[in-house]
Amino acid sequence: MKIAVLGMGAVGRGLLRMIDEKDLGITVTGIADSKSALIDKNGISAGELLAAKNERGYCGDKTISAMEVVTRADYDALVEVTPTNAMTGEPALTFIRAALSRGKHVVTSNKGPIAREFCSLKEMAREHGVQLRYEATVAGAIPVMHMLEHGLAGNKVQAVLGILNGTCNYILTRMAAEGLTYDQALMEAREMGYAEADPTYDVKGTDTAIKLVILSNTIWNGTAQLEDVSITGIDQLTTDALRLAEEQDHTIRLIAEAVPEKNILRVAPRIIPKSHPLVVEGSLNAITLETDMAGEITLIGKGAGSVETASALIGDLLFLSG
Amino acid sequence: MKIAVLGMGAVGRGLLRMIDEKDLGITVTGIADSKSALIDKNGISAGELLAAKNERGYCGDKTISAMEVVTRADYDALVEVTPTNAMTGEPALTFIRAALSRGKHVVTSNKGPIAREFCSLKEMAREHGVQLRYEATVAGAIPVMHMLEHGLAGNKVQAVLGILNGTCNYILTRMAAEGLTYDQALMEAREMGYAEADPTYDVKGTDTAIKLVILSNTIWNGTAQLEDVSITGIDQLTTDALRLAEEQDHTIRLIAEAVPEKNILRVAPRIIPKSHPLVVEGSLNAITLETDMAGEITLIGKGAGSVETASALIGDLLFLSG
Repeated sequence: MKIAVLGMGAVGRGLLRMIDEKDLGITVTGIADSKSALIDKNGISAGELLAAKNERGYCGDKTISAMEVVTRADYDALVEVTPTNAMTGEPALTFIRAALSRGKHVVTSNKGPIAREFCSLKEMAREHGVQLRYEATVAGAIPVMHMLEHGLAGNKVQAVLGILNGTCNYILTRMAAEGLTYDQALMEAREMGYAEADPTYDVKGTDTAIKLVILSNTIWNGTAQLEDVSITGIDQLTTDALRLAEEQDHTIRLIAEAVPEKNILRVAPRIIPKSHPLVVEGSLNAITLETDMAGEITLIGKGAGSVETASALIGDLLFLSG
Repeated sequence: MKIAVLGMGAVGRGLLRMIDEKDLGITVTGIADSKSALIDKNGISAGELLAAKNERGYCGDKTISAMEVVTRADYDALVEVTPTNAMTGEPALTFIRAALSRGKHVVTSNKGPIAREFCSLKEMAREHGVQLRYEATVAGAIPVMHMLEHGLAGNKVQAVLGILNGTCNYILTRMAAEGLTYDQALMEAREMGYAEADPTYDVKGTDTAIKLVILSNTIWNGTAQLEDVSITGIDQLTTDALRLAEEQDHTIRLIAEAVPEKNILRVAPRIIPKSHPLVVEGSLNAITLETDMAGEITLIGKGAGSVETASALIGDLLFLSG
């Protein structure tokens, strides 16, 4: 399988490293980072790309654009792993549309375009007889989309509950375990590399809500937008609230919840029994699917990370090629 | 998709009920219970079969045998859901071989033949260009086989840990939560319908070990047999041992574990931190897969039940037809 890769951030580099180290049957024929690009229908060494990026800060030829890779390279699937713009989905959205309209599969970890334009992109893929796959957009390494597509085929999913943001879960775990205040736990999360310098996008619940929109639209073939989600973040939570919950064998987690029958589409801190499978510690993610036949199925795993996200991209690529 | 069904116990009836209630595109053209059988290439109403079984105790014509259904009926996939014989795998093994040699797919919930003859059956399916699928043999509703096949494609699985027997997990949960003795918890499990009159097969770890053999052979394409598993059951566990573990935020669970690199293939009660994703309560099952890219992925769900097991069978059937 031949792929063109857009983006050489942590995820793109993780993918290239796995292609270099493992025998996956995947050949890179086009690549672009933010400054340069390369096209070679005979294949480009993933190892050499990583070395070039590491040594000089860019991967290829500064006169070639990412769009040229999308429109001119010879590939089966475009792997779109540029940074997420949750508001417009750009420039990823334009790249994805260009690839689909060329009749190329698209595999992406980019939440922006999938949350914004799920229906139109799905329709465009269908028209051109190709697939749009986005396992990596939700819950990192956890193959929830594959689970919905295959393992739970035939089931009606009635509700989905998720812990979809590792930063928030780390903060809440530390507040509960050590009695830290929100500010203390946030500072620790920053030091551990779990929180960004500006944590707003995570702690206000926006990141969780975007993932909920993607999950919900996937399960129920819906048209939900970020604006449709009722969102409460974790930044107003007190240590007292957590302590009270803990005293009764409960804890507080930032839960994303979609229940179409009850018109629920919300992200909010929730009190939940500690024995519930969804209650994971630290930066883990968890998703519970409530189904009519299989009952409640819970998936737990790492929600982020370079190689973990690459695992999801590779699962999608191997599904397309297999 | 046309199917022939062998077995009208709880699992067979659950499957027929779902075929009757849901629009799955599955038609029954052959069926056998322990006393009778029916063959009709134009399709047999699942609802009428259930009604007949309920009213008179058998489904069809007492002069037709199950083997005639396997060899004469017109179907795409045989669904083999007769009772498990863990020692010989019979009579299911003979039925499965007959179907495969006719070039028919086989979908089964029967642990016996898969644990006993995994390699020879897989080879037979390959020779005849059909598939042998057995999602329902391990952990009921949890689609772990689909997860391994698709979601985690490209990953190297390094180890598997599982809670694969709901009866044992229920007993251990109750011993820990209420300070019950093993005998008290077993009696309660019987009253709740979680334990058989003769619980040996569950509490001695045999059932868990058979599932571990199936999982392990699937993941590593191996040839392990039940005799290769080091097995310790839960029937010698004391309330004191559980109390000691609980005092240090740990608990005891019957864990199935396979780590080929360390030559580990064992079932034994293990002390495990209560915050570990694998620690589930009551009769739930859980499986943790340790992988090279995705890290640890844990799946939690119901390990048994009529409709839950039907969910796994249907996932396999829809994969074959899709």
